[in-house]
Amino acid sequence: MIRKVCVVITARPSYSRIKTALKAISDNPELELQLVIAASALLDRYGTAVNYIEDDGFRIAARVYMVLEGENPTSMAKTTGIGLLELATVFDNLKPDVVVTIADRYETLATAIAASYMNIPVAHIQGGEVTGSIDEKVRHAVTKLADLHLVSTRCAARRVEKMGEDKHKIFITGCPSIDLAAEVLPNPKLDFNPFEKYGGVGDLERLLNGYLVVMQHPVTTEYRLAREQVMQTLEAIHDIGMPTLWFWSNVDAGADGTSNGIRSFRESVKPTNMHFFKNMNPTDFLRLLYNSKCLIGNSSVGIRECSYLGVPVVNIGTRQSGRERGRNVIDVDYEIEQIRSATEFQIRHGRYDSNKVYGDGKAGERISQLLAQAPLEIEKRLAY
Amino acid sequence: MIRKVCVVITARPSYSRIKTALKAISDNPELELQLVIAASALLDRYGTAVNYIEDDGFRIAARVYMVLEGENPTSMAKTTGIGLLELATVFDNLKPDVVVTIADRYETLATAIAASYMNIPVAHIQGGEVTGSIDEKVRHAVTKLADLHLVSTRCAARRVEKMGEDKHKIFITGCPSIDLAAEVLPNPKLDFNPFEKYGGVGDLERLLNGYLVVMQHPVTTEYRLAREQVMQTLEAIHDIGMPTLWFWSNVDAGADGTSNGIRSFRESVKPTNMHFFKNMNPTDFLRLLYNSKCLIGNSSVGIRECSYLGVPVVNIGTRQSGRERGRNVIDVDYEIEQIRSATEFQIRHGRYDSNKVYGDGKAGERISQLLAQAPLEIEKRLAY
Amino acid sequence: MIRKVCVVITARPSYSRIKTALKAISDNPELELQLVIAASALLDRYGTAVNYIEDDGFRIAARVYMVLEGENPTSMAKTTGIGLLELATVFDNLKPDVVVTIADRYETLATAIAASYMNIPVAHIQGGEVTGSIDEKVRHAVTKLADLHLVSTRCAARRVEKMGEDKHKIFITGCPSIDLAAEVLPNPKLDFNPFEKYGGVGDLERLLNGYLVVMQHPVTTEYRLAREQVMQTLEAIHDIGMPTLWFWSNVDAGADGTSNGIRSFRESVKPTNMHFFKNMNPTDFLRLLYNSKCLIGNSSVGIRECSYLGVPVVNIGTRQSGRERGRNVIDVDYEIEQIRSATEFQIRHGRYDSNKVYGDGKAGERISQLLAQAPLEIEKRLAY
Amino acid sequence: MIRKVCVVITARPSYSRIKTALKAISDNPELELQLVIAASALLDRYGTAVNYIEDDGFRIAARVYMVLEGENPTSMAKTTGIGLLELATVFDNLKPDVVVTIADRYETLATAIAASYMNIPVAHIQGGEVTGSIDEKVRHAVTKLADLHLVSTRCAARRVEKMGEDKHKIFITGCPSIDLAAEVLPNPKLDFNPFEKYGGVGDLERLLNGYLVVMQHPVTTEYRLAREQVMQTLEAIHDIGMPTLWFWSNVDAGADGTSNGIRSFRESVKPTNMHFFKNMNPTDFLRLLYNSKCLIGNSSVGIRECSYLGVPVVNIGTRQSGRERGRNVIDVDYEIEQIRSATEFQIRHGRYDSNKVYGDGKAGERISQLLAQAPLEIEKRLAY
Repeated sequence: MIRKVCVVITARPSYSRIKTALKAISDNPELELQLVIAASALLDRYGTAVNYIEDDGFRIAARVYMVLEGENPTSMAKTTGIGLLELATVFDNLKPDVVVTIADRYETLATAIAASYMNIPVAHIQGGEVTGSIDEKVRHAVTKLADLHLVSTRCAARRVEKMGEDKHKIFITGCPSIDLAAEVLPNPKLDFNPFEKYGGVGDLERLLNGYLVVMQHPVTTEYRLAREQVMQTLEAIHDIGMPTLWFWSNVDAGADGTSNGIRSFRESVKPTNMHFFKNMNPTDFLRLLYNSKCLIGNSSVGIRECSYLGVPVVNIGTRQSGRERGRNVIDVDYEIEQIRSATEFQIRHGRYDSNKVYGDGKAGERISQLLAQAPLEIEKRLAY
Repeated sequence: MIRKVCVVITARPSYSRIKTALKAISDNPELELQLVIAASALLDRYGTAVNYIEDDGFRIAARVYMVLEGENPTSMAKTTGIGLLELATVFDNLKPDVVVTIADRYETLATAIAASYMNIPVAHIQGGEVTGSIDEKVRHAVTKLADLHLVSTRCAARRVEKMGEDKHKIFITGCPSIDLAAEVLPNPKLDFNPFEKYGGVGDLERLLNGYLVVMQHPVTTEYRLAREQVMQTLEAIHDIGMPTLWFWSNVDAGADGTSNGIRSFRESVKPTNMHFFKNMNPTDFLRLLYNSKCLIGNSSVGIRECSYLGVPVVNIGTRQSGRERGRNVIDVDYEIEQIRSATEFQIRHGRYDSNKVYGDGKAGERISQLLAQAPLEIEKRLAY
Repeated sequence: MIRKVCVVITARPSYSRIKTALKAISDNPELELQLVIAASALLDRYGTAVNYIEDDGFRIAARVYMVLEGENPTSMAKTTGIGLLELATVFDNLKPDVVVTIADRYETLATAIAASYMNIPVAHIQGGEVTGSIDEKVRHAVTKLADLHLVSTRCAARRVEKMGEDKHKIFITGCPSIDLAAEVLPNPKLDFNPFEKYGGVGDLERLLNGYLVVMQHPVTTEYRLAREQVMQTLEAIHDIGMPTLWFWSNVDAGADGTSNGIRSFRESVKPTNMHFFKNMNPTDFLRLLYNSKCLIGNSSVGIRECSYLGVPVVNIGTRQSGRERGRNVIDVDYEIEQIRSATEFQIRHGRYDSNKVYGDGKAGERISQLLAQAPLEIEKRLAY
Repeated sequence: MIRKVCVVITARPSYSRIKTALKAISDNPELELQLVIAASALLDRYGTAVNYIEDDGFRIAARVYMVLEGENPTSMAKTTGIGLLELATVFDNLKPDVVVTIADRYETLATAIAASYMNIPVAHIQGGEVTGSIDEKVRHAVTKLADLHLVSTRCAARRVEKMGEDKHKIFITGCPSIDLAAEVLPNPKLDFNPFEKYGGVGDLERLLNGYLVVMQHPVTTEYRLAREQVMQTLEAIHDIGMPTLWFWSNVDAGADGTSNGIRSFRESVKPTNMHFFKNMNPTDFLRLLYNSKCLIGNSSVGIRECSYLGVPVVNIGTRQSGRERGRNVIDVDYEIEQIRSATEFQIRHGRYDSNKVYGDGKAGERISQLLAQAPLEIEKRLAY
């Protein structure tokens, strides 16, 4: 019997972290993919990831608008509630055999709860990692709801088991985001003009002598500081002066603070070395990253994809703290001077060796196999 | 500074498990109690617990209707979503310093998520226990969201710590439900006529030669079996023939199955030894229990209060499996013959010694103290 | 181009009032039917109308659980909100060309609002009638949102026009409920045993010497009186003593009052002439009605179907006040004596002539034609 | 007995249209004001009207975040649903004697429905007016739900009556927005520097030789055209070259289109005569308007306040079509040339005579009196 696999994608980064698995699920004759697109993945302000998903040829089974405006803690909680309410209806109509939920966002939690209460087995991707922020709580809460743990690293597997999960339900697949990096690695040339393809003023020539990439998200448990935090980075990048491709942050509480900081800096300082982007096709983004001198910010891309690609990273603040990392990462505080000098060090250092801690490029295929063959059970019990 | 403590009560049993703590919080000059009554605690079908709460003198800060009809897995998931959406608004308006959530129901989870995303510390009561059913998943998920663990037993404390929680945030308080039992124990006489006070036909005389109590809930992960399961108990109790006080089940998926089973049994068999009740003031209920020959069903009351009171218990099925229990409990399957013979054994055996595993009667006071004095922090990290 | 017609059915009576139109839409090659089943039409407590719909061969495009428990004014308002939230997602995924909403319930309003804001033309069935209760407000509010008015009577058409609607958008189709009655009329024999087919104890013989039918709903603006009101009818029917088939009320505020009244009357008085039913296939119901001596209660069935079938009706209270009616209806207050004597009068009087005020039996076909051919526009303006 | 009056404010413009009534209600010893702030009135992106409300000294009884992101028709429908769901809880906890709802937005409808189903009388302000867009449908639907009609003009009163409302429930109060204009009129000097007080670069000197004001909202039934429509105005204003104060649009579907249009125009053309503002204290805004050469756009401010203040207006498109207007308004299409020449005409023409069609400056007081004294009833019936 063909298993119906429902995957819920709710944000731009989640798509990169599941894309190769979606492909492998679609190609697996034992599986039927039911793709649900929800939350910020539908929104123009966050780059309308749904367009990339459709361009990649995936058919969408349901769309759910669920992001409540406010970008504060209250609206995040309420967004989770709306998602839960609506995803239950979606699952009730699609009747999947297993639901896949990704990482540690609020929609991840909504997905896991809806499926759990509906007696649908939950497969969780990227459990067992350790970070700061509310994500830490949510990730482990999802682990306690999940029936199948498809983790990225050995450490993650060990942690999930220590939390009392049955070790026969824990599988180290690697992270599908690394699969995309692995596809790019053999031929990593920057084969497109980001300005032409994704808007903005500038020409490719400018980038030939080296450029930086910035991705900095607000930290939800420190959301009132978002503006101040981004200001440190803006100043540092401005000082360094190298051309910089800056990606707008995601939809978390504090995003308004981050955006306001950037807008007001642009208006008052009028920096000439910064170019702003909303979103990019994941492969294009990885090429861009590969050819950059350094990634600056607090995105997990620095920890995951960049360690595989050997791209130098300056990781700021607590958002990724606790995550396993390669030698390519330097950790600094939200502080101009630290950011600037670490970035300059990385520019001088250049590329690092590739590190396979987050996967070897075959995660998507492994996930598809497991979803087709692993026993799907919903009863579980703390192992101790 | 006075701490505002918001307690969310969503069901009849939750009230018994927090009542003495509410009293102690109200009496503590360092604390202000904000009481939110929601879900089935507001509904006539489930005994309108809110009336007992108001009769006990507690002021209600907000009421939230949130139970979606259906009593199936979809409606449970959606109820959680509605609760989450609305409790966030309630918290946004009340601005508590700490939110208290009880046990392992879906509203417990909604409460914990809303508070977590809103950066309000969460105190969880009754974490670390092990049972069957969806409750098992939810209880541990709430542990991963909670910042303060106020557990009932030594085993529970050890499990919470093993799940990776900071041991300085785990406190063994005992269960407040035992506090009520401790109040009843010195003078446990049945000092009221349940038929007069709570409706139904019958007179106190009938009970003098011994009676049974039944509380049987549907098991959400087996919700299609609810009707069949309750039928076994109905037949067994009918066979035994002793007067029996039967309490209607709670609002979980399957409640319709349980109710239908009971209704159709009553219509076809017209049993004369069964009297049905919706709800009772907790103290009255404990007196009734104390004086009974045996509690039959799958309620945690059998595991907790009855072990303290020394009441014999026949525990049916998987719902309480994994929970620590005293010698007063015999476990059986959903099967007439097993239920009947275990009950007859318990009737012959009579009262057991009191067991203090779930508390010594001072939990409410301890919880109030801890809420007043424990550090309230929201950042946490897996301990390994 | 084929027009996608989305019909939202949310309650047992709505199905009877649209069934023949659904059939005609399905059969029309210019139309594609998208059937959404929601609210009490999914619930066991209200007779699970969805089962009849599926048995009749209709494919269901989406199901939406949306009834919040409480059966009080707050829960009705919240149910409307949940319905609106979820129906918007359903419409967003189904992308209908026109949405059909029926009559005057809260889900009718939720349907109309969702479609209006989504720029989907709304066709309203049964606008322009006048009654008491909140239904009156809702019905006319839906008229102001609707783009196409498919009304039952000449008076209704005139009223819709007077409210400022464009007369070219108003069509008198008759009520599809009459279509079912028209199918039954040529051969109205009671060809089934209601006790066998729909449960309950009793045999067909009992009904041969005449029987009554009762349908009494709570009135939402008087919802605290529901228990008292139903008591009057119970007493009257008990006095009359003729076998009576009594249908449980719908899901409005006060339904608990009505149900409690009936339950307590049954327990205390143990009436032997009353048989209770939840729901019935519409055709079976009409046969039952045709062969009865009198319909008692406040259902619009008394005003509509019974006037076509010539069945005597005792209409109680304000719920139908203002509706056009045939000579078959006697209006009385919620008062035993009035109910009893009017019913006895009707039993003596016997069958009335058929009255065509609510339609001639071809409404379904007309509605289907209009949905296929009427211009679908969403801009409108008050005519004065 | 003191009547509890609950007023729900959900957007910046609604506050201006109720502020003097709020004051009069607060001052009336027979009334208690319960102020609920919701929707875009809480959001930074739309100018956080809640701050102005608190600065004016009003105490807020409840806040409700309810705007779903998307700014498309689906998200508007869902926002209405969320609002309805949550406002019901708010009313259930506040227990008002009457609820006041303003104008014709989706939150207006949510407020009216929640109150109607909860049997709370609804007073509707600004019913009976005629415009284009979805607002037209919503306004009249609210009229059909409302129990008390507090209208602005004689024509509006006549239309409400023609729709079948009881003429004893219709009162011409004038519009409270005119009250604010009336306060400004005796001493209309521009007594503050908008750049200093509300941000942005520029100095007061610039404005001394004349300036324009623009307020252009997307039209929900034409929401895909929003970008194109605003472009016409941008070009026209750029051509004219006079200093211009431009106010960002509200939260309707299409707002993203409008914003994108403005952002891209600013980036590519870098206009030097335009200054952008989010929000302003209503009195400051009226002074600014009074001293301007012309208001351009499609805001109802042009029709209402400007006609009283005698400010020339160029009204673009269909959004206000059907509304009564003074001689100060010239209507044009979304077309550069028409906008430019009409604006130039108005600049040459200068100030018009004050017109009192929308009120005489005493609306707030009249509304307060009526809320204190009008009979509050919830039963109504179409008058024909």
